[in-house]
Amino acid sequence: MAEAETPNRSPEIRKDKIHNRWVLFSPARSRRPSDFKAKSNPQPNNQTECPFCAGHEHECAPEIFRVPADSINDWKIRVIQNLYPAVSRELDFQNPVSLVGDVAVSGFGFHDVVIESPVHSVNLSDLSPAQVGEVLLACKKRIEQLRSCDYIKYVQVFKNHGASAGASMSHSHSQMIALPIVPPTVSARLDSMMEYYKQTGKCSLCDIQPNELLIAESAHFISLVPFAATFAFEIWIIPRDHSSHFNEIDSEKAVDLGGLLKLMLLKMSLQLNNPPFNLLIHTSPFQDDPSNAPSTHWFLQIAPHLSGVGGFEIATGCYINPVFPEDAAKLLRDVRIS
Amino acid sequence: MAEAETPNRSPEIRKDKIHNRWVLFSPARSRRPSDFKAKSNPQPNNQTECPFCAGHEHECAPEIFRVPADSINDWKIRVIQNLYPAVSRELDFQNPVSLVGDVAVSGFGFHDVVIESPVHSVNLSDLSPAQVGEVLLACKKRIEQLRSCDYIKYVQVFKNHGASAGASMSHSHSQMIALPIVPPTVSARLDSMMEYYKQTGKCSLCDIQPNELLIAESAHFISLVPFAATFAFEIWIIPRDHSSHFNEIDSEKAVDLGGLLKLMLLKMSLQLNNPPFNLLIHTSPFQDDPSNAPSTHWFLQIAPHLSGVGGFEIATGCYINPVFPEDAAKLLRDVRIS
Ligand SMILES: Nc1ncnc2c1ncn2[C@@H]1O[C@H](COP(=O)(O)OP(=O)(O)O[C@H]2O[C@H](CO)[C@@H](O)[C@H](O)[C@H]2O)[C@@H](O)[C@H]1O
Ligand SMILES: Nc1ncnc2c1ncn2[C@@H]1O[C@H](COP(=O)(O)OP(=O)(O)O[C@H]2O[C@H](CO)[C@@H](O)[C@H](O)[C@H]2O)[C@@H](O)[C@H]1O
Repeated sequence: MAEAETPNRSPEIRKDKIHNRWVLFSPARSRRPSDFKAKSNPQPNNQTECPFCAGHEHECAPEIFRVPADSINDWKIRVIQNLYPAVSRELDFQNPVSLVGDVAVSGFGFHDVVIESPVHSVNLSDLSPAQVGEVLLACKKRIEQLRSCDYIKYVQVFKNHGASAGASMSHSHSQMIALPIVPPTVSARLDSMMEYYKQTGKCSLCDIQPNELLIAESAHFISLVPFAATFAFEIWIIPRDHSSHFNEIDSEKAVDLGGLLKLMLLKMSLQLNNPPFNLLIHTSPFQDDPSNAPSTHWFLQIAPHLSGVGGFEIATGCYINPVFPEDAAKLLRDVRIS
Repeated sequence: MAEAETPNRSPEIRKDKIHNRWVLFSPARSRRPSDFKAKSNPQPNNQTECPFCAGHEHECAPEIFRVPADSINDWKIRVIQNLYPAVSRELDFQNPVSLVGDVAVSGFGFHDVVIESPVHSVNLSDLSPAQVGEVLLACKKRIEQLRSCDYIKYVQVFKNHGASAGASMSHSHSQMIALPIVPPTVSARLDSMMEYYKQTGKCSLCDIQPNELLIAESAHFISLVPFAATFAFEIWIIPRDHSSHFNEIDSEKAVDLGGLLKLMLLKMSLQLNNPPFNLLIHTSPFQDDPSNAPSTHWFLQIAPHLSGVGGFEIATGCYINPVFPEDAAKLLRDVRIS
């Protein structure tokens, strides 16, 4: 890609007034490395070159914490700063960048990376249920730290697996971006769930009747293909008990969720031949209006990328899914994990 | 991708009540061919195998019309049915598919393809301004035909160029999907433009001051990088005169737009080395509330695909753009077309 000359520009968050949505401008992002040779050839890079591997900690941006906390060479998880952040922890959020008649704020925020294993070749689904639970608890811990910053309104946890799901690094990791705005998809979700609550007196996720859409269940969670799945073979994992914020999860539930998440990743991988995917935690904003509490319910989404997205989806926000959710659920239910 | 067993299912449009958005389910789509060997290796297929080439008309789904209308072997443009439609013109829209407690309508609609040239190797930007104008007028003509169907609310015209922008066929073409719903992005845009109108008494696009974001101008149109561009090097082409519906365009303006569109495609292609892109026509719904007329203004969007989209964008609807619009506009302004 042609390099635009952006000498030391700070990131900025701008509002598109036509679509009423925000865009993050971050020149630093164009400098990040990619260890995928070509987007379509997701060969893991050589371990000796990967900064996320054990022994290469000094090649990374500063560490925030590690698990176990007192480990030296035997860490299991590291939460670090992103070296090419989309938002900057050094900016003054209260100092908006103003351009005549337009809306922009400085690109303040936190962008972190969760390294899920010290070993390059280990995937999230290779970990034990308890270890997946530990990754989830590391995300919880970091979210609770970020909550103490008054200007942060929402934290998005996301995982890109495979080059065509966006991953530029093949070593298993997730990311977290803490934002000074509530993103458009999140507001739309909260509004929509509130609408359901007003009409029925119930939370839309507590009220869900999975029936033929169910894939599996654990003590505290259910997994299903959503009725209007955006992606073919999309999976949601929903807590049985009503809870607005992911960071309300406790250790017992984290291990239980770890087991169900591992099972879903294995089933998906077997059925679809290790597809690229995104794993997303959908939670509620920090200083959420208490009146939203009865209608908001966090959940995990696994979105496999089997076909690309074209102009129609970009233009309309409508997705085209060639696989009916009932059929996807049946296939996933029937996958046997040996 | 694993084939789901969907024996002769009709397409269906379902509402995701959590996000308040629609998804099109169309099993037929999974059967469409791809002439790109791999998504990353966009080699045009052999002309002898391409159904969109002159001489292969019989391999296509039925024709709707051609340009010139009375041409036989010397057509310039063909508008045909899509052989693997995302929506079906044969369904009864009034007969909603009902699933207990959920929202779904039958996948009624029209899905057409505009073949922009009889010659396989000719791109839209290779055509003369008048010929690009004719492609635009063919879209206008088809939209006006679709308008006569009472159940159609919105027509999305879009072009996928290059495999990573979604194209499965390399022969130059655009598509049109006519829908019985107003898509979420369109409603959001109309609401947002109405809000601006209420606050200022002006149309947000008539009121735009491009300044350093301007790329070029023609008699009836201006082209610019939008202030909050979602994609790096994104371009909008906006009619100078207020007009809500693309299909209000006349022949003179179509040729003028053809010239500016061609120029933008050439500049983008030179600056970014023929990137994959989407070209989108953003217009207004058919039976639009007349009170929306002063605030709605159609425009074209060119969205180059320089980097993929990851989990953050899918989860939040916020995009990360590494290139500031002012820098992109300057680079594009300065590209010399010999
Ligand atoms: N013989 C024939 N006669 C008539 N029509 C024929 C035909 N052979 C093929 N077609 C149709 O031609 C179209 C070619 O379209 P594109 O190359 O722009 O992308 P496609 O629609 O496949 O998918 C891209 O665009 C859609 C919509 O944005 C995304 O859902 C998707 O993921 C992305 O790959 C296809 O829709 C296909 O059905
Ligand atoms: N030594 C080091 N120390 C610390 N951090 C390091 C590092 N080396 C690299 N990093 C960071 O590690 C991250 C790896 O992230 P991913 O592979 O999930 O995708 P990336 O964020 O590049 O982009 C994908 O996800 C984003 C967000 O969804 C999309 O905008 C984009 O198009 C898509 O490719 C990068 O953000 C990079 O900045």
